[in-house]
Amino acid sequence: MTTELKTLTVDLGDKSYPIYIGSGLLSDKSYLDKHIHGKQVMIVTNTTVAPLYLQSVCELLNDNQVEITILPDGEQYKTLETVNTIFDALLGAKFDRSVTLIALGGGVVGDMTGFAAASYQRGVNFIQIPTTLLSQVDSSVGGKTGVNHELGKNMIGAFHQPQAVVIDIDTLDTLEQREFSAGMAEVIKYGLLGNADFLQDLEANMSGLMNRDVPLIIDAVYRSCEDKARIVAEDEFEAGKRALLNLGHTFGHGIENTLGYGTYLHGEAVSVGMLMAAKLSELEGDLTTACVERVAQLLNQANLPCEINQEITEAQLFAAMSLDKKAIDGNIRLVLLRKLGDAYLSQDYSGDNLNQVVRDFIS
Amino acid sequence: MTTELKTLTVDLGDKSYPIYIGSGLLSDKSYLDKHIHGKQVMIVTNTTVAPLYLQSVCELLNDNQVEITILPDGEQYKTLETVNTIFDALLGAKFDRSVTLIALGGGVVGDMTGFAAASYQRGVNFIQIPTTLLSQVDSSVGGKTGVNHELGKNMIGAFHQPQAVVIDIDTLDTLEQREFSAGMAEVIKYGLLGNADFLQDLEANMSGLMNRDVPLIIDAVYRSCEDKARIVAEDEFEAGKRALLNLGHTFGHGIENTLGYGTYLHGEAVSVGMLMAAKLSELEGDLTTACVERVAQLLNQANLPCEINQEITEAQLFAAMSLDKKAIDGNIRLVLLRKLGDAYLSQDYSGDNLNQVVRDFIS
Repeated sequence: MTTELKTLTVDLGDKSYPIYIGSGLLSDKSYLDKHIHGKQVMIVTNTTVAPLYLQSVCELLNDNQVEITILPDGEQYKTLETVNTIFDALLGAKFDRSVTLIALGGGVVGDMTGFAAASYQRGVNFIQIPTTLLSQVDSSVGGKTGVNHELGKNMIGAFHQPQAVVIDIDTLDTLEQREFSAGMAEVIKYGLLGNADFLQDLEANMSGLMNRDVPLIIDAVYRSCEDKARIVAEDEFEAGKRALLNLGHTFGHGIENTLGYGTYLHGEAVSVGMLMAAKLSELEGDLTTACVERVAQLLNQANLPCEINQEITEAQLFAAMSLDKKAIDGNIRLVLLRKLGDAYLSQDYSGDNLNQVVRDFIS
Repeated sequence: MTTELKTLTVDLGDKSYPIYIGSGLLSDKSYLDKHIHGKQVMIVTNTTVAPLYLQSVCELLNDNQVEITILPDGEQYKTLETVNTIFDALLGAKFDRSVTLIALGGGVVGDMTGFAAASYQRGVNFIQIPTTLLSQVDSSVGGKTGVNHELGKNMIGAFHQPQAVVIDIDTLDTLEQREFSAGMAEVIKYGLLGNADFLQDLEANMSGLMNRDVPLIIDAVYRSCEDKARIVAEDEFEAGKRALLNLGHTFGHGIENTLGYGTYLHGEAVSVGMLMAAKLSELEGDLTTACVERVAQLLNQANLPCEINQEITEAQLFAAMSLDKKAIDGNIRLVLLRKLGDAYLSQDYSGDNLNQVVRDFIS
């Protein structure tokens, strides 16, 4: 039984879709039913999530012709090769353009399933059932799909919107605390970049959130998706405003690229990256030291890292950052903070200040 | 110097683009110049085309930062793996989202380069310079990009429109006669499916066309692209009318899938497929025997095959056809002819008639 439900519509014209957020959604078939057209369904999940939720989802689909692809778990498998195993399964099942792919898992499963859906026969339907906090607040809005390349993260992919996103908060029960924290980094990001009220509420409620209070989580996920959806609706193909969502990400991807995926979780790297952006904003004269301190404290409350506690050189970090896809013709574009809750895009900051921030964080 | 030029605009709203068709276009930089934004250019070509035209194209781009990827030549290399070598080159050159990919070659180069452009950093610009008759009249309109999978042709891909298409008819000078004929099959297709006037002109001019008369070819390429562009503009994502462009293709893909790519050229398989569709239309009571004879005669004049002169069983052909992506939920949808120049989509034909056509053509 569905006990709590919030529904959000991501407004993208004829590509608009609903996000259902609540508790108990995976025991109610209506959420999937209304978004599956035709009989053919391919559920894509991974070895960690399959034992936990695959059976529940299958039981919702007993009127369909269901096939299952179980991927290995881990960012290191987010490759073209792995996506090709989804194509193998789709073609092996002789599934045609009427198939619906269902992504059951975290961001890696969602990104690869979405890219497979974008590319199979040049585009088929898909539904996301994100089971991690990070994927619930990040990849469920925006239509970004794709895989990594050994020379860079998310370098290959497509924009492809799902038919619907079904977020059952109960799936967080099985999420490790470290993963939960990493997801919380993205939640905090929405407050920092454009929603000072939300940021204040997060500061007030962080201990309840970390204790997995269900209504608080539903509210935080809803508001995160709402903020992201508003920004994405204004800029579907990331030509302008959407770039603000990369707060902390250019630094973060630099850290991930340098250390190799997996040393830091994505959200952990973004946590450090957001603090680096805040610090640079302070040096640029926009944020007060007290504000930067507030950011550090909130990240800390969410058990997130506030420094790079690994061997890494300035040169390595800069090399990795300039390859980040937010670069335009070779210059590093960064998201900075005018104040808490108000981000902007800049290529005008002082290079000395950037150098100092990098030095401070890697020492 | 450009000596002849026809320009056609493919009307797709904010994705509209021009097709330049003429002689001498590869010695005039203006056609590329106005569609390249930013410095970075990656030319993708193959081992056959590179020695012929790569230098000319490079000379048009001396203000740009140009990198080159030379792919192996052949449909058997139209795979995800080969596309990945384009990603390797793009990332190796640290090219960002401002890069423009230029596809210099036939349909295989165009399809892979287009898919690489669709997928690199979730979509970058590309320009097509098609050098075969088939790619000039087929893949230069429609935005279809992609690769083959061992279980089916064009099963993985994207819809991605180019910035411009530059068709220099002079590149046909180096095209083998068999390839030229295969391209002519697609030209004839436009007449058959929706343009009786064009069909009559082709019947009147086929010997001039086969003798490579330049003005006749420019006119035939222009009218082919025009017909295709009109149909695509009405149905960008192939939900309805665009399916008429598949005249002969479900049979044709069935033949190619069964025999393996390369035994027949694509256009040759389509030639047989169109005649099969015409024959089925006759059995369905729509075409006269004389009309079917006219089709066979025109294909014959273009040196195209009118039968499957290879070992192949009914069961093999049907198995391969039902995997064709034009199928919906398992039923084979075919493009048939009401009369010459008037095609329609049908799932209602008699199965006995289909069986008879298949029997007639494989014996």
